[in-house]
This record gives sequence, structure tokens and C-alpha cells, in this order.
Amino acid sequence: MTAPVPALRITVGDVTRELPTVRVGNVGRVPLVEFIGDSELTNAAAQAMLPLIPEETEVLLTVVTNALPLTHEISDRSGLPYVVARKKRRTYMQDPLIQDVPSMTLGVAETLWLDGPHAARLKGKQVAIVQDVVATGGTAQALARLVERAGGTVAGYLVAFKQGESPLPLRYLQELPRSL
Amino acid sequence: MTAPVPALRITVGDVTRELPTVRVGNVGRVPLVEFIGDSELTNAAAQAMLPLIPEETEVLLTVVTNALPLTHEISDRSGLPYVVARKKRRTYMQDPLIQDVPSMTLGVAETLWLDGPHAARLKGKQVAIVQDVVATGGTAQALARLVERAGGTVAGYLVAFKQGESPLPLRYLQELPRSL
Repeated sequence: MTAPVPALRITVGDVTRELPTVRVGNVGRVPLVEFIGDSELTNAAAQAMLPLIPEETEVLLTVVTNALPLTHEISDRSGLPYVVARKKRRTYMQDPLIQDVPSMTLGVAETLWLDGPHAARLKGKQVAIVQDVVATGGTAQALARLVERAGGTVAGYLVAFKQGESPLPLRYLQELPRSL
Repeated sequence: MTAPVPALRITVGDVTRELPTVRVGNVGRVPLVEFIGDSELTNAAAQAMLPLIPEETEVLLTVVTNALPLTHEISDRSGLPYVVARKKRRTYMQDPLIQDVPSMTLGVAETLWLDGPHAARLKGKQVAIVQDVVATGGTAQALARLVERAGGTVAGYLVAFKQGESPLPLRYLQELPRSL
């Protein structure tokens, strides 16, 4: 048994959840958003995010893993195709673009991999970057760099929850506290 | 430029795709199924898999990454909740179940992590395991072991594509050749 911990209530569309909070490093308790395993919350967020998609968008880009069902659902509801960057090399990749993520949280360096045939789907396109949660924006910046390197243009940054201060012009549903 | 490579045409519902083939290790060219980045194929497979769900199923269990949008969609269409095992430890996990995958392909050892609160959602439940592709069935067996360790019962193995021989009683949509 552990002691009761503070929770945070969020409502998206007609779905309400008590977010659990977890202790991460030395920043106190952080609210944990889990779209994975929650198709109702995923669908509600996808629906609410549709009006945030920049009008000129032609393709969506996200990164594994947490925003994957969300991006699938936004793609399905908007009719826009989506492309996914991975966090490790897959054996089948052909001429992948490899992009380091500026490390600002937890001191863990991360690398994004975008398979060559998927990068080709961004070329000459207006690309909206989709994420579940953005804190510092390091991953968003790495995704933007991938768009540019693939020959596309970043149409905007689409985020369910903004958590903290980011220099990027995020289009987000709600702001969450960084810690409780 | 690379030489033309053999492709494999599949049809699921009203969606047809030419699967690319990739050279993997020394087993020749393997057809590559990519649900990620293809919401149409994902939705068609989810719809076709609904009749394969064992009637007594109460919860779905899958593992990141490739079957994630597929499982979200099956969950959404069936109304069954789903739980996801991860392939690495997340900082927020509480008392996770840790399960090695018997290594039969590529000689790469893999470990599954199921967060404690998610394992609790399997306790006393009939659980259907969902995967996009099953080859040897090593991952499926590790997922089944997680179900048992969490106090649940495996109701069945639900798979979009069976690729090769597995000793498990898979309920699958289609069989794919292991190599071309």
C-alpha cells in the first residue's frame, strides 16, 4: 500500500478522467496522461483537436508511442494521412533520416528514426506535428527538423496537453501543471 | 535506385495494399505489414477481426508498437477495454510485471513490462491477446504468461496476419508467406 496521492481531474469533450500523478526525478509529482489503453479519452481528444489542425495541412507526423492511437484517430476523422517516426532503428528501414532530440528532461539522449519511404511522404507537403503532451518541446523541435530535412514545411504543432513552457507556437487543448 | 523487388497484394475488407518486402537476416525477403501510418488498413482489419473475438472476452491485451492503433480500433468497435505491455521500463511504472520473451527470431532478447495498475485490470478477467503479425509466437506466449501472472485467463489469440508456423491456436484473418 502507498499513501493516497493527489489526482488531477480533466475533461475532454464528454470524457472526464482523474489523472494519476507520479513522482518523476526531483520535480515533484507529475500528472500522467495515458491515451494508450483508453480509447474513449483518445477519441474525445482527437475530435476536440480537429478544429486545431491548420487549414493547409496535408500530412500529419507523430512519433511512437503514446500519441500513436491519438494520431491514428485524428487521421481517420480528418482524412489526412499520417507518418510516424520511431525511437529506434528497425531492421527494415531504408535510408532513414536520423535525428537527435535535444535533451532537456531527465538527461536522457534520444534519437528519432524516420524510414526513407515515410520521409518521402513528407516531401513538398505541409505537415502538422501531432503529440499527446509537450513539455519543453524538445521532441517537437526534432520532429520539425525531420520535416525540413524530408523537404516538407511545418504547418503547425498540434498537442493535446501543454505541460510547462515551450517556445513553440503550440495549438493545444488544455494546459496541465508540470507538477503538483 | 534499387532493383524492383517482389510485392505481395493483400485485401482486407475493401482495402487492398501492395506490401513491400524487405530483406531480413538470411531468411530472404519478408513481406512487411505496416498498420502504423495507415488508418484505412487499420480500420478494415479491426472490423474484420471483430467476429474472431472469443465471446467470453472481457479485456484485450497487446504490446507496443505496431498493433497499437489496431488494438485501439478493436477496443473502440467492440467496446472492450484494452491494456498495453511496453518493451522498456517507464519511469512512472509501479510494481511492473517483467516478462522475458523467448527468443526465436533474430537472436534478440526482449523483455515486456506491464505496469502494476494495468496488470490489475487483467485480474480475474478473460483476456484476448491482440497482435498484428505472429510468426513464431514467442511474443504471444510472453503476453499469455503476463495474463496468467496478473491473475487473468487467456481467452484466445487474435491476430491480423499469421506468418509461419506457431503452436498457438491463433484466430487470424490471413496467412502470409514467411518469405518470398
